[in-house]
Amino acid sequence: VLINGKTGDSLAATDRGLLYGDGLFETLAVCDGTACLWHRHMQRLEQGCRRLGMEAPNATDLANEAARLVEGRDRGILKIIVTRGSGGRGYRPDPGAPSRRILQLFPSPDYPADWGQFGVELRFCTTPLAANPVLAGIKHLNRLEQVLARAEWDTPGIAEGLMADLEGRVIEGTMSNLFLVSGGELTTPPVDRCGVAGVMRALVLDLASRLGIPARIAEIRRPDLQHADALFMTNSLIGIWPVRQLERWSYDIAAIPDRLRKAVEQYGFAAGDVGSVSW
Amino acid sequence: VLINGKTGDSLAATDRGLLYGDGLFETLAVCDGTACLWHRHMQRLEQGCRRLGMEAPNATDLANEAARLVEGRDRGILKIIVTRGSGGRGYRPDPGAPSRRILQLFPSPDYPADWGQFGVELRFCTTPLAANPVLAGIKHLNRLEQVLARAEWDTPGIAEGLMADLEGRVIEGTMSNLFLVSGGELTTPPVDRCGVAGVMRALVLDLASRLGIPARIAEIRRPDLQHADALFMTNSLIGIWPVRQLERWSYDIAAIPDRLRKAVEQYGFAAGDVGSVSW
Repeated sequence: VLINGKTGDSLAATDRGLLYGDGLFETLAVCDGTACLWHRHMQRLEQGCRRLGMEAPNATDLANEAARLVEGRDRGILKIIVTRGSGGRGYRPDPGAPSRRILQLFPSPDYPADWGQFGVELRFCTTPLAANPVLAGIKHLNRLEQVLARAEWDTPGIAEGLMADLEGRVIEGTMSNLFLVSGGELTTPPVDRCGVAGVMRALVLDLASRLGIPARIAEIRRPDLQHADALFMTNSLIGIWPVRQLERWSYDIAAIPDRLRKAVEQYGFAAGDVGSVSW
Repeated sequence: VLINGKTGDSLAATDRGLLYGDGLFETLAVCDGTACLWHRHMQRLEQGCRRLGMEAPNATDLANEAARLVEGRDRGILKIIVTRGSGGRGYRPDPGAPSRRILQLFPSPDYPADWGQFGVELRFCTTPLAANPVLAGIKHLNRLEQVLARAEWDTPGIAEGLMADLEGRVIEGTMSNLFLVSGGELTTPPVDRCGVAGVMRALVLDLASRLGIPARIAEIRRPDLQHADALFMTNSLIGIWPVRQLERWSYDIAAIPDRLRKAVEQYGFAAGDVGSVSW
């Protein structure tokens, strides 16, 4: 663990990340000594800091620290947490306070190898996502909803759970974004009232546009899921997970455009490719 | 700072309180070597742990650790944080994992002495409170809404800001609960969709009942505030703050029942009184 560039595995008990969840994080795939989609993650982190009124960490420091951690690592996860540091008075932040950066390296998740190829099984979660336009889209540290939703099941065969807002709009998975395929067109829910604006979600939308695959951001409700040709989930570690089964509904994985899956694999997971970081 | 009973001011960087805001806290007034309203705070903490599916800390350990910290202290704040500890896999909590308790002692806030007596000035915040029945009422560590709301002003004369949900229901202050007085009756908003079930709010409701002052839990909207005789804010550190002014509206502090204010002062702030802790 690197905290503000120094090795150490502990943190001030006064850190506002602990006290209030006052901060942000990014989770990056590490492949062959580089952190994938680095610039996209850094861009989202900066936007998040701006929206929370936090000082963004120095970009060069962050890149150097990440490079130290991932150097020589074949695979893994780089987690970057940025908090508003210590200080302020109660909830009130100290306007000039420097943020604190915490970088941690973890082993890659040991998901079954066939999930990416042959698809996963999903369930519906009952824990709702609260709507707040001020926080929506940001990958902030207030994640109790996701913790409670993920605690709803422990069946190893179920890869992910879908979460909806209080009005029944299906928004995302506990740790991934949702795409629906219908008649060759992609749909993913808006994240302007709740949900996280995933880096892989953005990449998929960009790639779809480049590949001429129609894609739109629109509300998704349960009947839309029932009648879809295919579903898939995205995040920066898994790339794309096709959905084989959602509760009692089955899907045709072949309806997911193959060139999209191939393009994502190239971008997100092969070191040296266009999307990987060059320090 | 005591972390699981041991002196130390730092915390594992893997603590789920930091990673996800996966935990709870209590803020207690310390007076003459005791922590006020101890049993009420402990009851709320236990209820919160149950609702989050977290192991509650051992009650005796917690009481002993609190006693060590507050012993001989004239005044101050005791902050108790309980997190789900380290571990689990991503958002998924480890079901049997022991919780971690972090106790910190702070000096009393230096609010102007006349705020409690002659009242405070409030403003409206624009940061909304998101509705989520699963989290409502719990004093959990996901407090970004309060941080952003409190960052909206830095005028020293303004003591507190009122927060509303997305439908315009006024719920609470950033760090306190709201009561309205009209025709001798008290009203405080429900906290079953958003907001914190404050310990002082519960005490005020109990005292009102004992004193024969009519009180109800009901929705409050801006026009209700405009036409109220009086308003007051409550929390475990301030007891009651009468409201002198809210934006352009002025209030008659004398409309707050004097015996209620006296009863709260006795309960919350005088050591040795009925409400204070006996270890």
